[in-house]
Amino acid sequence: MRREYEFSVYRGTFIQLGRLPQSDLVPSPAKPELQRTQGILWVSAESGRIKGYDWKIHDDEAFTGFMSKNGWVDVDGKTNGNLGGATKVKIVEAREDKNEFFFPGFIDTHIHAPQYPNAGLFGSSTLLDWLETYTFPVESGFGTQSTVKGQSQAQKPEEAPEKALHIYDQVVSRTLAHGTTCASYFATIHVPATNALAAICQTRGQRAFIGRVCMDEPAFCPEYYKDLSAEDSLSATKDTIHYIHTLDPKGTLVKPIVTPRFAPTCSRPSLTALGQLAASYNPPLHIQTHIAENKNEVALVKDLFPEAESYAAVYDQHNLLTPRTILAHAVHLSKEERTLVKARDAKISHCPASNSALGSGIAPVRDYLNEGITVGLGTDVSGGYSPSILEAARQACLSSRLLGHTKDFVDYHSHDGCESKSVGLEKLSVAESLYLATRGGAAVVNMEDDIGGFEIGMIMDAQLIQLGSVRMNGVSPLSATANMNGGPCTSLIQSGPVGNVDIFGTESWEEKIQKWVWSGDDRNVKAVWVGGRMVHWRV
Amino acid sequence: MRREYEFSVYRGTFIQLGRLPQSDLVPSPAKPELQRTQGILWVSAESGRIKGYDWKIHDDEAFTGFMSKNGWVDVDGKTNGNLGGATKVKIVEAREDKNEFFFPGFIDTHIHAPQYPNAGLFGSSTLLDWLETYTFPVESGFGTQSTVKGQSQAQKPEEAPEKALHIYDQVVSRTLAHGTTCASYFATIHVPATNALAAICQTRGQRAFIGRVCMDEPAFCPEYYKDLSAEDSLSATKDTIHYIHTLDPKGTLVKPIVTPRFAPTCSRPSLTALGQLAASYNPPLHIQTHIAENKNEVALVKDLFPEAESYAAVYDQHNLLTPRTILAHAVHLSKEERTLVKARDAKISHCPASNSALGSGIAPVRDYLNEGITVGLGTDVSGGYSPSILEAARQACLSSRLLGHTKDFVDYHSHDGCESKSVGLEKLSVAESLYLATRGGAAVVNMEDDIGGFEIGMIMDAQLIQLGSVRMNGVSPLSATANMNGGPCTSLIQSGPVGNVDIFGTESWEEKIQKWVWSGDDRNVKAVWVGGRMVHWRV
Repeated sequence: MRREYEFSVYRGTFIQLGRLPQSDLVPSPAKPELQRTQGILWVSAESGRIKGYDWKIHDDEAFTGFMSKNGWVDVDGKTNGNLGGATKVKIVEAREDKNEFFFPGFIDTHIHAPQYPNAGLFGSSTLLDWLETYTFPVESGFGTQSTVKGQSQAQKPEEAPEKALHIYDQVVSRTLAHGTTCASYFATIHVPATNALAAICQTRGQRAFIGRVCMDEPAFCPEYYKDLSAEDSLSATKDTIHYIHTLDPKGTLVKPIVTPRFAPTCSRPSLTALGQLAASYNPPLHIQTHIAENKNEVALVKDLFPEAESYAAVYDQHNLLTPRTILAHAVHLSKEERTLVKARDAKISHCPASNSALGSGIAPVRDYLNEGITVGLGTDVSGGYSPSILEAARQACLSSRLLGHTKDFVDYHSHDGCESKSVGLEKLSVAESLYLATRGGAAVVNMEDDIGGFEIGMIMDAQLIQLGSVRMNGVSPLSATANMNGGPCTSLIQSGPVGNVDIFGTESWEEKIQKWVWSGDDRNVKAVWVGGRMVHWRV
Repeated sequence: MRREYEFSVYRGTFIQLGRLPQSDLVPSPAKPELQRTQGILWVSAESGRIKGYDWKIHDDEAFTGFMSKNGWVDVDGKTNGNLGGATKVKIVEAREDKNEFFFPGFIDTHIHAPQYPNAGLFGSSTLLDWLETYTFPVESGFGTQSTVKGQSQAQKPEEAPEKALHIYDQVVSRTLAHGTTCASYFATIHVPATNALAAICQTRGQRAFIGRVCMDEPAFCPEYYKDLSAEDSLSATKDTIHYIHTLDPKGTLVKPIVTPRFAPTCSRPSLTALGQLAASYNPPLHIQTHIAENKNEVALVKDLFPEAESYAAVYDQHNLLTPRTILAHAVHLSKEERTLVKARDAKISHCPASNSALGSGIAPVRDYLNEGITVGLGTDVSGGYSPSILEAARQACLSSRLLGHTKDFVDYHSHDGCESKSVGLEKLSVAESLYLATRGGAAVVNMEDDIGGFEIGMIMDAQLIQLGSVRMNGVSPLSATANMNGGPCTSLIQSGPVGNVDIFGTESWEEKIQKWVWSGDDRNVKAVWVGGRMVHWRV
């Protein structure tokens, strides 16, 4: 395809989280910080990667000079100039007067796409009864057990139930609208529907890891929704991997991920086969599963796998604890398990909205970071009620502020005799939660050099955030005629604010970011790019 | 004023929380339940009160028949008929095809209006340092200490700083837009600005309790922001009461509320005088203050008031613990304090978003309800980051699901030997959180017979909620042409959903309510009425 322009030039304010010192060797208690730069940044339309920036271009004059000097012309013709022989560029502007800025796209390291119709439905259930009551029934509707088959059988997306296609389409729409440029999806056991999710992500332009869910253990899977055997589970998984590798041979946008649901639903032969399968590729395939979400679940795994010293050890024994493994939740890891996870360089997806909603507990994220474990954020739809990573960031902050009140946290830090040192330090700041949402998530999916920030060479996965302008205006609220007929306050609705973020003009730029995290929503996401392609914009 | 019509007729689905058995005599562990009725309900335009309903009117034919039988005609002329001699009525419809329903207006039992510009700004602070760093500076900008004066001095709203007027106007706009029909406001120490808040609520039509903040204790108030003496504090409070009683002589919409900030900022003479002041009216004035939000604060009060057996006892000794007292937070009450609060029939405003954000802890709300204490919800802007009571309801559910993990809760229930009985019962359901947001809040402000539900004789304080229609449509998401240019998915943006609530058509009506609570926001509030007057509608 011939491109209309060579570069996209993004102009305005860029905000991101600073990189932390590498923590492979030494535990790093370093705190991430928000960084702001203003100027221009350009991206290759061909590769979607950042080719350069200039943080000295602060006004129209400097910008025009820069364009001329480089022989660049605006493909949309806003800048006059002879197009012949010139390099055409697409200009995207973040407007200062509307408090707009570019921010790295969010990375959702754990989301169950088929559960989206259940978002917000969980009653007062906890993990194990929630699976039975809410989750397995909705997932089973994405196909029949006959659609879990070997390569010769059904695997075309078109063979998935139409409703499944609509739900997956809506999930991708919603997550893009919330600024999620990359997601690691659990699908269902069904090959056609799982392949359909991959196809939809590819078409819509969302970076995605797509996992066909493996669950073959009859004792802990419902009769109506399970892989028929370990062999079937492996075979169907290979089918999906094959489909995705055909769909996107270079894995530019969509990649497969090996997905044993969690230890209780998988037989030992299945776990072993899946570990071998992941390792058989070069580089090895990504793996995702759940761990230590809920205390009853931890006790169950202890009973089911007496040969393993811990929940983490179960996965380790089957070669599923790798540097490319995403462990969702990790609320209740023992000290030994933390050491093992760190030693294997496995990654953790922190899902605070889900963990609060299902009453699972609070993962000690700051401890994990201090111990050198890589952590990102997950929405865990529909254990989590929201497809928004901004909501996950907010809940990460909130639950971390309650962590010091929990018995487990107090006990853990009393035992090692450093309670006083830890009090207060467990609280995640807005900057830390946004770090988890971007840089952290990128590291969880092993793409820390590609996404999550704005360095040269990185892929342009980004969102344009609009907070709105300052809304103070001249009409006195005491002049009754302005409002006495009720209805929307014109100053509120018709002037600056976007969504619920109110800027009064007294805030520092860091405080505006805090207001975004605490009061923002999808209304503030004006546009979203993945690999430099605009994949969502707000109407 | 001559009214254009005699009744408003609300037509469609009505959802509310059932009343609980009176709990004055026996502790009631009763669980509130959602109730749904469909038909029509009519409200006197004169009084704003509900005059009748008919739950058998389910279609146009029945409705037309009902109108004819009563000699009613549509003032907007949508129904044909001879207007001469007929009773004119205004018809308001909740549309089933858009999942619309009427719901009681929300009651915010604790909100600091002047702190709104700080919503979302608190860093990692906790109560006492947050007051110093964020709160006192912003509040002090609502006037000068010379605007705290006796009756002969400044008290006109127009003398308040213009910025204060705009902030108060925005707070009222925002809370109305979120469905808050009644709010109990803390203002600042300044008489003109406090009076301005009362005037704005009166003009905009929001039911409100307006409290001039009393804080005269030099040791715990900043030099730049405090009442100059107990006498000044009392005198200024009387000024505001007088202004509000003149503004709204019958207290139809706006009432004063005596507001000692909290024990540490008030001298003993001030506390005594304010208790006497409230009691000197018939009926006694309402009172609001803070209690036991944070453990350091509890320890501070213990030090400052050695003569009192507890924090609650401090207020009790000064006659501030009355059936018309709202105690904000109550996170860390002792068993003896709970008994005292119950004995005095004082009310509790639960502010979960604030308590999580400031790391204060989790109030054991279900325990309080079981013990017969009246509880409502508060946003506590800006300790709370959101002016939305729906967000408060959500946070009430979330934090209650973490309560069982806290050391204090476990210890409390271990001591009385009933740990096993309590586990899980502390979780608030969606119905319970909505009960707190409506019926509970109404009881907290002693208006349980007037607002919070749809019984005959009650005042029509209500909101029209719109969730949107089912969005499944016929175009297959796999047809790439529909979406390959990126941008908003047309099915998402242009069809049914309103805000973030996605209805797939498989939900029961109770599940739709759950989706509203977990995913809804101000976009779902289509219109708001206070006393039958429409005071907000969404554009």
